[in-house]
Amino acid sequence: MSDLPRSVEFHEEGPREGFQFEPRTYPLERRRDVVMALARTGLKQIQVASFVHPKRVPQMADAEALFESLTPVPGVDFTGLWLNEQGYVRATRAKHIRIKGSLSFYASDAFSRSNNNLPAAEMRDRQREWIRRYLDDGVALEAAHLMTAFGCNQQGEVPVGAVTDLVRWLRDACAEVGAAVPPIVLCDTVGHANPEAVRRRVGAVRELLPDVRVGLHLHDTRGLGAANVYAALQMGVDLFDSSVGGLGGCPFCGHTTSAAGNVCTEDMVFMCHELGIETGIDLEALIEAARLAESVIGHPLAGHVMHAGSLRGIRTAAA
Amino acid sequence: MSDLPRSVEFHEEGPREGFQFEPRTYPLERRRDVVMALARTGLKQIQVASFVHPKRVPQMADAEALFESLTPVPGVDFTGLWLNEQGYVRATRAKHIRIKGSLSFYASDAFSRSNNNLPAAEMRDRQREWIRRYLDDGVALEAAHLMTAFGCNQQGEVPVGAVTDLVRWLRDACAEVGAAVPPIVLCDTVGHANPEAVRRRVGAVRELLPDVRVGLHLHDTRGLGAANVYAALQMGVDLFDSSVGGLGGCPFCGHTTSAAGNVCTEDMVFMCHELGIETGIDLEALIEAARLAESVIGHPLAGHVMHAGSLRGIRTAAA
Repeated sequence: MSDLPRSVEFHEEGPREGFQFEPRTYPLERRRDVVMALARTGLKQIQVASFVHPKRVPQMADAEALFESLTPVPGVDFTGLWLNEQGYVRATRAKHIRIKGSLSFYASDAFSRSNNNLPAAEMRDRQREWIRRYLDDGVALEAAHLMTAFGCNQQGEVPVGAVTDLVRWLRDACAEVGAAVPPIVLCDTVGHANPEAVRRRVGAVRELLPDVRVGLHLHDTRGLGAANVYAALQMGVDLFDSSVGGLGGCPFCGHTTSAAGNVCTEDMVFMCHELGIETGIDLEALIEAARLAESVIGHPLAGHVMHAGSLRGIRTAAA
Repeated sequence: MSDLPRSVEFHEEGPREGFQFEPRTYPLERRRDVVMALARTGLKQIQVASFVHPKRVPQMADAEALFESLTPVPGVDFTGLWLNEQGYVRATRAKHIRIKGSLSFYASDAFSRSNNNLPAAEMRDRQREWIRRYLDDGVALEAAHLMTAFGCNQQGEVPVGAVTDLVRWLRDACAEVGAAVPPIVLCDTVGHANPEAVRRRVGAVRELLPDVRVGLHLHDTRGLGAANVYAALQMGVDLFDSSVGGLGGCPFCGHTTSAAGNVCTEDMVFMCHELGIETGIDLEALIEAARLAESVIGHPLAGHVMHAGSLRGIRTAAA
């Protein structure tokens, strides 16, 4: 009935998603403390900051300094995000960063236009240049993000066909230059996904490219985050983007679609462990990191296990 | 791969769970407004209050007056909770109430002792008296709640065998008096459940009593509520207790196991509708009821869809 993976990898997005989302700017030292706490939990990849225009995202203006403040931890990749040439160049010059070749596609034309002022087809074609650029620079192509793969606030429904069209395009573009197709991350950018939609899209991508790893980037906008992760686990999906404490959105910021936190890392790690799936993560250390993040952010985070506690203490006391 | 039910029934517990959980007492009129708003959503059963000792639960001291203030709505059952003879007699005298014969079992002896000052076996044997009493009174036996069916904060793990033992006992006790076995509601009283534990327990009960309806009462203590509901839906479970807005616990009341809200009615209704499962509920009306409940309670509730909105408006605008 299900095909749970043996182990699952979580890519932590909290430091970037969380601090970028908040209206205020937090001191560099406090953000560094959160990143370093996360780096000691067993997480293997932590997205630290984005290299974007400081006028558009002032919270990330000190990205270089934040990276420089980090202490390398063996086995942990500190990653960054960029959206254009300028950001990429800044990222490549940062200290302690692991440059991962990453592509971004939009399954919704309306979202691409509103988010990037460009049609989705043009955004897609630009990814061909990134594929070549990464190849030229010797940067491994490690992820292709398919944004709004489950729906879009402008366009409404996004059909499975829009997702598979992008996957076919990606397959062909990679073949043109002899590159392997990177892991494909299906992104529920604005929280439209449901468990069956997850199953359908994962299944459709697998049918096209059975040997390519499929990951999910999910937001808990409408309370189905855990159900969507479980549906993906049942399909054997073993790669998830997530945010410590559910950072990246506030469930209580009013009746708007901005209420869009990522699925919560420690809650999903808890689920995996309860299901007998390995994560390589020390849940108790992760809970401590979530509590630190909450104290830095200064308002309650949406995570559950960080507030209720894991079951370890209960089971130990009972044993 | 899954056996989703065609339709699902939600038993709303918010008014009792929610207002009982809060430290303060709310004006009767405001609580009535919440109940009446819920009664106009398509929900068929709403638990309004508990008939318990006013010194132990002062929030429920005016249970009779609250029931009396209600306006009957065709097709909607206003129900109450009682734990002993005195409470039952009070309930039977209340206005506008639908008396449902309900049994309570404890899968954990430690929890039964701490919650009722009685061993689980004695609590169980007392249910035989309730079965006879309901029969004598012409009250239909409509639910058997198996508390701590997934784990216990004192005892830790609760094995599946503890659940099936109770189910066997119930089957035999019902047979003794020629009563049909009522729907069996597996309760994750303190939030230990995970999706595979749901599947195992539902499967074990079904194996013993294939023709008896199985329901679930789940708390979202550790963020797995939606995943647990989805796992149950995959087993064809079509009966859930839930609370509007996730009432019944505050996810932000500190690092304690009191952070134990029920699964959120409107989030789970949203999931069902997205999965093509009927509920008979008007989601938009339910969201309005959740927002009313939040304004009455006076602090943010844990529900997601009530804050993010459903997808109806987005899809209508896009169409």
